[in-house]
Amino acid sequence: MAFINDDFMLSTETAKQLYHQSAENMPIIDYHCHLVPQQIAENIQFRDITQLWLVDGHYGDHYKWRAMRGNGVSEDYLTGGKYSSWETFEKWAETVPYTMRNPLYHWTHLELSRVFGIDKLLSPKTAREIYEECNAKLATPEFRGQALIRKFNVETVCTTDDPADDLRWHKMILENPFGTQVIPAWRPDKAMAIEDPASYKAYIEQLGAAAGMEIKTYTDLQDALQKRHDFFHSMGCRLSDHGLENFYAAEYTPAEIDGIFAKVMAGSKPSADELEKFRSAFLFDQAVMDANAGWTQQFHIGAIRNNNSHMYAKVGADTGFDAIHDHQIAEPGHKFFDRLTLAGKLTKTILYCLNPKDNEVMMTMAYTYNDGTVPGKMQFGSGWWFLDQEVGMRRHMDALSVLGLFSRFVGMLTDSRSFISYPRHEYFRRILCDVLGKDVELGKLPASEMERIHGMVQDICYNNAKDYFKF
Amino acid sequence: MAFINDDFMLSTETAKQLYHQSAENMPIIDYHCHLVPQQIAENIQFRDITQLWLVDGHYGDHYKWRAMRGNGVSEDYLTGGKYSSWETFEKWAETVPYTMRNPLYHWTHLELSRVFGIDKLLSPKTAREIYEECNAKLATPEFRGQALIRKFNVETVCTTDDPADDLRWHKMILENPFGTQVIPAWRPDKAMAIEDPASYKAYIEQLGAAAGMEIKTYTDLQDALQKRHDFFHSMGCRLSDHGLENFYAAEYTPAEIDGIFAKVMAGSKPSADELEKFRSAFLFDQAVMDANAGWTQQFHIGAIRNNNSHMYAKVGADTGFDAIHDHQIAEPGHKFFDRLTLAGKLTKTILYCLNPKDNEVMMTMAYTYNDGTVPGKMQFGSGWWFLDQEVGMRRHMDALSVLGLFSRFVGMLTDSRSFISYPRHEYFRRILCDVLGKDVELGKLPASEMERIHGMVQDICYNNAKDYFKF
Amino acid sequence: MAFINDDFMLSTETAKQLYHQSAENMPIIDYHCHLVPQQIAENIQFRDITQLWLVDGHYGDHYKWRAMRGNGVSEDYLTGGKYSSWETFEKWAETVPYTMRNPLYHWTHLELSRVFGIDKLLSPKTAREIYEECNAKLATPEFRGQALIRKFNVETVCTTDDPADDLRWHKMILENPFGTQVIPAWRPDKAMAIEDPASYKAYIEQLGAAAGMEIKTYTDLQDALQKRHDFFHSMGCRLSDHGLENFYAAEYTPAEIDGIFAKVMAGSKPSADELEKFRSAFLFDQAVMDANAGWTQQFHIGAIRNNNSHMYAKVGADTGFDAIHDHQIAEPGHKFFDRLTLAGKLTKTILYCLNPKDNEVMMTMAYTYNDGTVPGKMQFGSGWWFLDQEVGMRRHMDALSVLGLFSRFVGMLTDSRSFISYPRHEYFRRILCDVLGKDVELGKLPASEMERIHGMVQDICYNNAKDYFKF
Repeated sequence: MAFINDDFMLSTETAKQLYHQSAENMPIIDYHCHLVPQQIAENIQFRDITQLWLVDGHYGDHYKWRAMRGNGVSEDYLTGGKYSSWETFEKWAETVPYTMRNPLYHWTHLELSRVFGIDKLLSPKTAREIYEECNAKLATPEFRGQALIRKFNVETVCTTDDPADDLRWHKMILENPFGTQVIPAWRPDKAMAIEDPASYKAYIEQLGAAAGMEIKTYTDLQDALQKRHDFFHSMGCRLSDHGLENFYAAEYTPAEIDGIFAKVMAGSKPSADELEKFRSAFLFDQAVMDANAGWTQQFHIGAIRNNNSHMYAKVGADTGFDAIHDHQIAEPGHKFFDRLTLAGKLTKTILYCLNPKDNEVMMTMAYTYNDGTVPGKMQFGSGWWFLDQEVGMRRHMDALSVLGLFSRFVGMLTDSRSFISYPRHEYFRRILCDVLGKDVELGKLPASEMERIHGMVQDICYNNAKDYFKF
Repeated sequence: MAFINDDFMLSTETAKQLYHQSAENMPIIDYHCHLVPQQIAENIQFRDITQLWLVDGHYGDHYKWRAMRGNGVSEDYLTGGKYSSWETFEKWAETVPYTMRNPLYHWTHLELSRVFGIDKLLSPKTAREIYEECNAKLATPEFRGQALIRKFNVETVCTTDDPADDLRWHKMILENPFGTQVIPAWRPDKAMAIEDPASYKAYIEQLGAAAGMEIKTYTDLQDALQKRHDFFHSMGCRLSDHGLENFYAAEYTPAEIDGIFAKVMAGSKPSADELEKFRSAFLFDQAVMDANAGWTQQFHIGAIRNNNSHMYAKVGADTGFDAIHDHQIAEPGHKFFDRLTLAGKLTKTILYCLNPKDNEVMMTMAYTYNDGTVPGKMQFGSGWWFLDQEVGMRRHMDALSVLGLFSRFVGMLTDSRSFISYPRHEYFRRILCDVLGKDVELGKLPASEMERIHGMVQDICYNNAKDYFKF
Repeated sequence: MAFINDDFMLSTETAKQLYHQSAENMPIIDYHCHLVPQQIAENIQFRDITQLWLVDGHYGDHYKWRAMRGNGVSEDYLTGGKYSSWETFEKWAETVPYTMRNPLYHWTHLELSRVFGIDKLLSPKTAREIYEECNAKLATPEFRGQALIRKFNVETVCTTDDPADDLRWHKMILENPFGTQVIPAWRPDKAMAIEDPASYKAYIEQLGAAAGMEIKTYTDLQDALQKRHDFFHSMGCRLSDHGLENFYAAEYTPAEIDGIFAKVMAGSKPSADELEKFRSAFLFDQAVMDANAGWTQQFHIGAIRNNNSHMYAKVGADTGFDAIHDHQIAEPGHKFFDRLTLAGKLTKTILYCLNPKDNEVMMTMAYTYNDGTVPGKMQFGSGWWFLDQEVGMRRHMDALSVLGLFSRFVGMLTDSRSFISYPRHEYFRRILCDVLGKDVELGKLPASEMERIHGMVQDICYNNAKDYFKF
């Protein structure tokens, strides 16, 4: 029997029923990912499995790189780029057997099985044949970017885009539809990044150009962002996202914010205090913009990034040198959402945390601001990044369940740069069904209510996201 | 088979034996709850199930309100009070199926089954008949307040009372006994709440009146509190309780504390530093008072309260807008208990935490101050509030077990305002027996020691509390 | 059937196979413990089981003392030393049945079974016969210190030694080998402990004497430590260890450090800021020393010690009055390892944490600095102290697995002062096999890969440590 078989991860009969009857065939709404719009629009053809798995157009796969570094593989094979596709792939194949119990072991074989129809386990022994079979398939039209997305019944994909982006690739996709809706999402991190005045000034010029105006003041900045926000809205965007170390909710006055903006644009570094104030103002104003447009806002909290400055200098950000932070988040988080509630400007919100110690703080924070206007208005988002694995998902699902309404959960997203990470939705769904199936079999959920429980599975897999985001 | 059947939550044969032979029939000592003494004394008759479940005399049930808000139910049905009992109940019935995996789903059906003998599951379909059956029963003498308490074999109830309270209702109950001992517990939070000088001054006058003296200084305050403490003792009280964001153990001098008290009584707001000093002194002096009287002290640590100021302004405290805090607690906690140990004034103590990340810190803190005088002198209290659910209880039981003596645990309390929350003791006992039963069946506890394990169940359900509190 | 039987803790057939075929008979490398070298060299004969279990030459067993205090046993029996061996033992025997679910219950019976061949459970009923049987055996040569170590197939033991130690007992062992390699490990905590200038000065003189030089400056200190480091290296040492509240990575200049050292040596207490700077410099310099020698460095983070000053004054450190701290560790930890990476001086490293909330922070921190030079270079060490129990181990194994390479884990250590704590390796191995066995039986690991999974067990039990430390 294949490792990735029909009942993979499903430990009870009820789990199997739930999965096969209610989860397996639901479409996917991948409402947060990092696919590159140009690669979708141009219907990318991958050179080989190494490009697709280990070195994609932008960043490479930092999960695999971390594992390989931990397994004693030289950087020359990774960011070094000193070896051939085959040699790099071979190093990954050597590492795979050492990833047992890591999500990479499951992801790798799910992708081989679901994308390539290969049921062999990857190891040095099978490396060559798997490499060749994958490459042969990748050379065919059925394995170009759009076909890979279609293969997984993906109804909607939200990419992650900068406000200054002209969304030309989204337009091209709109004009050449391929069956999956591809929508931009608004990620204005750069417009808040005043800690580096030189880069910030350059970015503000770029943003001004995109908005067709000169940005001289903080008010101008907001006007420019509003124009871009309107434009994104016209392109179907209904979702923003912020990548943050923590929430920010310092006291500030408009005059202070104007002063900080002017100072940074004049080339001076802001103080820690100014940084905090600026971020507080910026996030608040962004949240208001989202509320006015009826969008959903997302907050990804808790990474400590670019820690290895030796490697950062060599290969830049997002290359596997980030980690989990341990800030205290309750006070700034509550201040932030309280302020929005008082202003009547709290829109639908999804909170993600990277430190599982914060699960309960996050959940109770979210549920403090539900106002009865939208079911599940305040969401605690799916296990993110380091937590996007079985242990992390189960802890997330438990925290969500015991402190709120699991039934209203908008479910899984890939957060991925890869065209073949959709099996992570399958993985999530299998774990979801396993959790519920076990509850039924242990009598913690009533067996007489299977119809509702099937409905719950369908809701979490698809219906809730459909109703919530209204793309 | 009913959802809430004989073996609900009991997944092994050993668990069933333990529960049915040793847990099920033990009396209940509910040593910490928020029942309203007047309602007990007057033997309250509930108007209907909506009053009992959704809008009790004081506060309503913030657990259910949070769930309903999260399910998209308008505030008009909840604190708004714009709808009839039936309409409000109907909204709850619509929400119940969406609470699967939340403790509310289990609590609701446990209460229907154990209090009303109703085995139907609550949903829109069954709402009307359940509403009517409950209301009919509530109109009978068997469903008045005292009978509801008696129904659950409750031996002792400790209410939660302010030092200024005249305990008239407790006297009335003493004079008209109904089979359950009802004792006050001492909760002096208001006497520490100098952060709002106006309310504080008013409270101090009220406290002075109760103590028959004028309170002009901090020393007067302590004298007045001591009088009330003696009075509470004479009324059977053996237990204090403090609701705190964190422990407080700053350095201070008596002169500083006198000054802060005078300043606040003169109407000035204390600084953050003064607040910390005052709280440190106040808590220390309270702990000494408890030690001198041989009482048990309780500390509930870790809530962040009244976060949603929009709703706080509209409906006040304890209405479902509190959350879990994430303070660092080790340093102030250890300083506090060290100081008491040095002074020879550390009495029996129960620590409760609201953030499960603190379980291990709390447990190892507690066990650092055991002095061999009383078995289980320093206790880590049962899962509290947001943690009073299956996942929270299991984590609590595990932390308690691996870092201390589970056998010495004083067990469950309801911490509830409701006359029908006693099935939470049943829920706790079922989980307790499930935990131990599984350990036996996995060979982690010796099957040859069933007598001791049954004894352990009986101890945790009842005997330990009986021996520990000596009510 | 005995409680500690062949399949103790092994809940699946696969777990049993893994344990009996691949774990049970692997030698032990106990790379971090607190055995007293003199006791090994002199081949200690224990007076009785009380000395061995409850009051060893140095410290006593603070785990058992904490449990006994929690069970209401007077200090007179413990540090008080007012009672006979039998009376003290009897109190422990009374406590044991109350330790069910605590690791002490398992450790006690594992030790009785594996060391003494006693399968009875310890309780007041069996206390006398067990006491006598143990004592009779302890009087024989087969139960002297070296034989006890040999009994458990211990290949290597690393003790924990101060840089000023002359390692005379290690020399004696080298000259009189008994089949187990006994190596010193470098623990320079005292050389960093400037918070108490008087003790520090005395220690520095002792260190200078050991190094054959006078230590007048911080540079002298480093020279003296380097000499001792070289000497330790010549004696086989390949491992350092630091016991820390947190990581330290403040900014400092060499001149500042010189000044702080001079100030302390002149008898003045350093400020909090100076303490932080000094520790940051000292730890960095130590890490460089280890890197130059190719050693492995260990960091034990997160205890809050000597909290009960009443008992500290009476009985000193390490007597059961320590607890788990809750510092934020991400920022200082990342700064520390980043600095070493930039300097090209990051050696093999094992991180241990005492607060399980930090597991994920620790793991992602470790994996941020792997550089592909050594498989598993950055390790997240086994559950430590309070976490060295089943729940702690499972959480550790899960965090390690989902965030890194479980296959590369160097495995268990005792961290113990006891000659008979080696069954904790057995305990760890049983849990390890249970974890993997369950994964196989649930289809989370492929049953077709049993060879690799057996290899993984062997690697974690022995091979990884053998390859990693190169003793």
